[in-house]
Amino acid sequence: MNSLKVAPLKIILDGDPGLDDAVAWLLALASPEVAVLGITATHGNVGLPLTVRNAGITLALAGEAGAGVPYFAGADRPLVAELVSAASVHGDSGLPASDLPTPTRPPESEHAADFIIRTVREHPNEVTLVATGPLTNLALAFRLAPDLVPLVQEVIWMGGSTTGGNRTPAAEFNAVADPHAAHIVFESGVPLRMVGLNATMQCIADPDRIAALRGLGNRAGAVCAELLTFYAGVYRERYGLSGGALHDPLAVGAAIRPDLLDWQAMRVAIEVQEGLNFGRTVCDLYGVTGEPANARVAVGVRDGAFFALLLDRIGTLP
Amino acid sequence: MNSLKVAPLKIILDGDPGLDDAVAWLLALASPEVAVLGITATHGNVGLPLTVRNAGITLALAGEAGAGVPYFAGADRPLVAELVSAASVHGDSGLPASDLPTPTRPPESEHAADFIIRTVREHPNEVTLVATGPLTNLALAFRLAPDLVPLVQEVIWMGGSTTGGNRTPAAEFNAVADPHAAHIVFESGVPLRMVGLNATMQCIADPDRIAALRGLGNRAGAVCAELLTFYAGVYRERYGLSGGALHDPLAVGAAIRPDLLDWQAMRVAIEVQEGLNFGRTVCDLYGVTGEPANARVAVGVRDGAFFALLLDRIGTLP
Amino acid sequence: MNSLKVAPLKIILDGDPGLDDAVAWLLALASPEVAVLGITATHGNVGLPLTVRNAGITLALAGEAGAGVPYFAGADRPLVAELVSAASVHGDSGLPASDLPTPTRPPESEHAADFIIRTVREHPNEVTLVATGPLTNLALAFRLAPDLVPLVQEVIWMGGSTTGGNRTPAAEFNAVADPHAAHIVFESGVPLRMVGLNATMQCIADPDRIAALRGLGNRAGAVCAELLTFYAGVYRERYGLSGGALHDPLAVGAAIRPDLLDWQAMRVAIEVQEGLNFGRTVCDLYGVTGEPANARVAVGVRDGAFFALLLDRIGTLP
Amino acid sequence: MNSLKVAPLKIILDGDPGLDDAVAWLLALASPEVAVLGITATHGNVGLPLTVRNAGITLALAGEAGAGVPYFAGADRPLVAELVSAASVHGDSGLPASDLPTPTRPPESEHAADFIIRTVREHPNEVTLVATGPLTNLALAFRLAPDLVPLVQEVIWMGGSTTGGNRTPAAEFNAVADPHAAHIVFESGVPLRMVGLNATMQCIADPDRIAALRGLGNRAGAVCAELLTFYAGVYRERYGLSGGALHDPLAVGAAIRPDLLDWQAMRVAIEVQEGLNFGRTVCDLYGVTGEPANARVAVGVRDGAFFALLLDRIGTLP
Repeated sequence: MNSLKVAPLKIILDGDPGLDDAVAWLLALASPEVAVLGITATHGNVGLPLTVRNAGITLALAGEAGAGVPYFAGADRPLVAELVSAASVHGDSGLPASDLPTPTRPPESEHAADFIIRTVREHPNEVTLVATGPLTNLALAFRLAPDLVPLVQEVIWMGGSTTGGNRTPAAEFNAVADPHAAHIVFESGVPLRMVGLNATMQCIADPDRIAALRGLGNRAGAVCAELLTFYAGVYRERYGLSGGALHDPLAVGAAIRPDLLDWQAMRVAIEVQEGLNFGRTVCDLYGVTGEPANARVAVGVRDGAFFALLLDRIGTLP
Repeated sequence: MNSLKVAPLKIILDGDPGLDDAVAWLLALASPEVAVLGITATHGNVGLPLTVRNAGITLALAGEAGAGVPYFAGADRPLVAELVSAASVHGDSGLPASDLPTPTRPPESEHAADFIIRTVREHPNEVTLVATGPLTNLALAFRLAPDLVPLVQEVIWMGGSTTGGNRTPAAEFNAVADPHAAHIVFESGVPLRMVGLNATMQCIADPDRIAALRGLGNRAGAVCAELLTFYAGVYRERYGLSGGALHDPLAVGAAIRPDLLDWQAMRVAIEVQEGLNFGRTVCDLYGVTGEPANARVAVGVRDGAFFALLLDRIGTLP
Repeated sequence: MNSLKVAPLKIILDGDPGLDDAVAWLLALASPEVAVLGITATHGNVGLPLTVRNAGITLALAGEAGAGVPYFAGADRPLVAELVSAASVHGDSGLPASDLPTPTRPPESEHAADFIIRTVREHPNEVTLVATGPLTNLALAFRLAPDLVPLVQEVIWMGGSTTGGNRTPAAEFNAVADPHAAHIVFESGVPLRMVGLNATMQCIADPDRIAALRGLGNRAGAVCAELLTFYAGVYRERYGLSGGALHDPLAVGAAIRPDLLDWQAMRVAIEVQEGLNFGRTVCDLYGVTGEPANARVAVGVRDGAFFALLLDRIGTLP
Repeated sequence: MNSLKVAPLKIILDGDPGLDDAVAWLLALASPEVAVLGITATHGNVGLPLTVRNAGITLALAGEAGAGVPYFAGADRPLVAELVSAASVHGDSGLPASDLPTPTRPPESEHAADFIIRTVREHPNEVTLVATGPLTNLALAFRLAPDLVPLVQEVIWMGGSTTGGNRTPAAEFNAVADPHAAHIVFESGVPLRMVGLNATMQCIADPDRIAALRGLGNRAGAVCAELLTFYAGVYRERYGLSGGALHDPLAVGAAIRPDLLDWQAMRVAIEVQEGLNFGRTVCDLYGVTGEPANARVAVGVRDGAFFALLLDRIGTLP
């Protein structure tokens, strides 16, 4: 790197913490490559009141790095579908850890969608939306302000899958938690990268990695280790895996270091018909439709380098 | 009527003019039983730029009655579905008349959904939303502000049908133009009356009625007569009827004089699955589901009394 | 009638007795205008073993008129959908009457679909299929022998509705009991008349009519009266009506005396997508699709003349 | 292997040749581990008249091995769905080779479904149905004779996919060519093995393999080489692969040598809702439904051993 400083990438973090959202947000807050303009909470892993509170907690955990970052409440339910939750994976509170700070301030009164609209308009073609939950807030913003879409730098989404799902045989949780919102975003024409299960299931926080986080010696590392220990229990029981998958952190990783993943451009459609495939991200892997790509999909990941990045950055926090 | 004055019903008019929306709004603006707090335009019969402009034109047509009423642009497309239009029924401009005023002022800058949210909160349990187009604006408001639903006095909607449709064999235009929005409103728990095709197709603006409007001698009557003459041509060709159906005016009539219609409470579900029945209002006419009613549905209409009311009120305008 | 004898119409009766199927079949067996070549039973109101047995009982009830008529077992379940039943309407046995004969002989071993195929081929362009249950047997025959369709004189089906349904808000029982079979028949190009709920709900077997049947003094009349008395109890409780609807007899009436009903040619599509409208007969009442008609649909009925015919013919049986 | 001879497995070959069906059938006819009781043709890769003729040609190609094997015409179209074809992959005739014999005898007059019913009943619990096309014939047999299902030894099907599709992004050709038939078979409870794209796309007939077949020096090898050369051109253009996938031969291989593949028992549901996922085999890879398995799905293949088997057996033919 020469002496010319590259301006950090302006991002808004939208998600539903959820323990891996929290780890992902800590990664973002700790990384100089990105400047977090705000955090917007949505329904998802747990209900909105909890995800909003967990956003405040995560900012408090980040110390100085989170001090100036506003956070916002967004949609408390999907656009059209029935509300679902993943509390069985993330604990009743969404942040199953013992030593958590309380938020240092309340959320802003502006609606998450309005914040996204205002911020993107203020920084045209500069803001990347890193979404790690159901896409309801983004979809509301896109529908309220159709002029917004061409002003967004990029959407990076943890969600979907090129293979099977984890909520239903066909669908990943963030996708099926609001398929109509995902449909709106994927059909909008916005530049879009999708980090799906097929990639994230390769990034497992196994006991060694958890120990490494704990070994950092700081509070953020200890909390991450405790969250991922809870998570590992769920994954061991459900999938026989040695740890939980670092779904959301990988999407933030993709914002910070795109070279950590391999990307393939393809047409992705969202199934909004109810039934077996509701919420499936239908990826045209073999190019049979001949339709132009609307997303770049993560198809490979350098797992070791990614975890090294995560460990390094969490280590910089208090 | 005794000397005790009854306060007029506070209403917001939401629609997609469209010639029968315009007639409906003139009826509302001319009626002392209702106080129009604002007019919100949506996509539908023609595109949003035209429906907004037509809202301004309609207010100008109403003269003093429209002078203080703000109007707003809302959604330019359905929540999830593809955009459709009914320009073949309403003319390319939506108001196929020759002697139209220009709007006396531009629309407000606030989004229609935000206006609805703000106004309902300012007048809790007092505002009736009279919707005569696709329900996108209402659905956006309900999703952005879930607290709004119990504060709404009532929604009266021209849309749907207990029998067949006019856009597809199964679906009425306003319903199929945004089925997901209709689903959101019908499942919200808001007090709701539905004035569907089964009722409105009984209110035909035939040549005698058109002549009566023209005979009023005022500009509003002349414009209504011209619009309904255009409309009659479409209905004659499509359905072999002697005039167009007064769909939207009847919904305003239901707000002013509920006794003009017969109402039956029933369970109404909206078909959001794509295919033959997309957008159908599935009315449980025989009560086979045993589910509680979520709407009162117009099943009969006193057509003569209704037209007398319409004629009387249009006659009070300039 | 002049001295030139008209050859009776060759018909096959396909149904799922079910008490109104039984009354319908007695009407056919007693009517010289039609010659019943065979009776084929299907799943439906009750299970196949019972509908086959009830076919045998009905033939026995008809005495000489039923003596030479073979009967056959067909499909025991729908083509694709889940099996449903209407035992709550028709009693557990399908024939809730006390004085029933036992079948005088067992069913033939040939499958109902094979009988239909063989018979239509033997009498090309002469056989009318009068179906008063789910259309599974006909659909199987049409798929096994695609050459059959142009050889069928006509299909007359009691099923569907131009308005609402009686099994779900959207669907009539015979339609929803095998929507895929109905789809196959309606899309086959076979000449087709549909006698749906909208017509049959106008033909009510009220107490006076039941008394008239009982007053005939014969066993067939007494059994019909007993069946319709049971039926009236169901309709009174469910719909507040004074008696049950003569659904299936009206379809046989349409075969004997087409002038008893008013017919409108239209496009009818069958909803095979699961969900709210599964099994709905989507009738293009307003001609909005512009597609050619594939059925003539009963839209009116001369109820008094129909019941007089029924009473007269039941009176000719033992 | 000791000196006790194991009786060959009785199989019926059902398919839609289609060039890989023909290679598959030659493999079966040449293999002493299986006894081919009959061949039944269905619609699919090309129309029924051609698949029937191609069945006769394949039997003629097999010489003595095909001499006593009857063949039958079955369904000319799917149960419910629209007819599709894959002529662009298999050539207009389905067998794009120059040196083909003419069939030595015509097909039997019995319908394929009736042959399957009769044969399974004659050999209860002994007959394996090896299906390499749309499952229409099997579904018709299962619906005409529900008693058949528990008498079938096993169904082995080339079709479906645990990942993406080759006809649509979501669906493999044989599955989407009759999803309702696949649904009937998968829900029937019959013992079932599925050899899907995820396995067969690992078995590519590349130029070396084609040369090896040609090098056998017999007519069967030469025809297989010619067919697979045509096929390779299609796969090169569509997928950038060095040869076509040996889909159907692998299913026959699974009948002869189950150990050539790795199997995982899982719940597989068939999507019969129209839309993006129509015809998808929804495989519960992660066990999220908790429903019992209804199929053993091929998840791995010993490709080299399989091709060695194929080469060896084709070499025994004239």
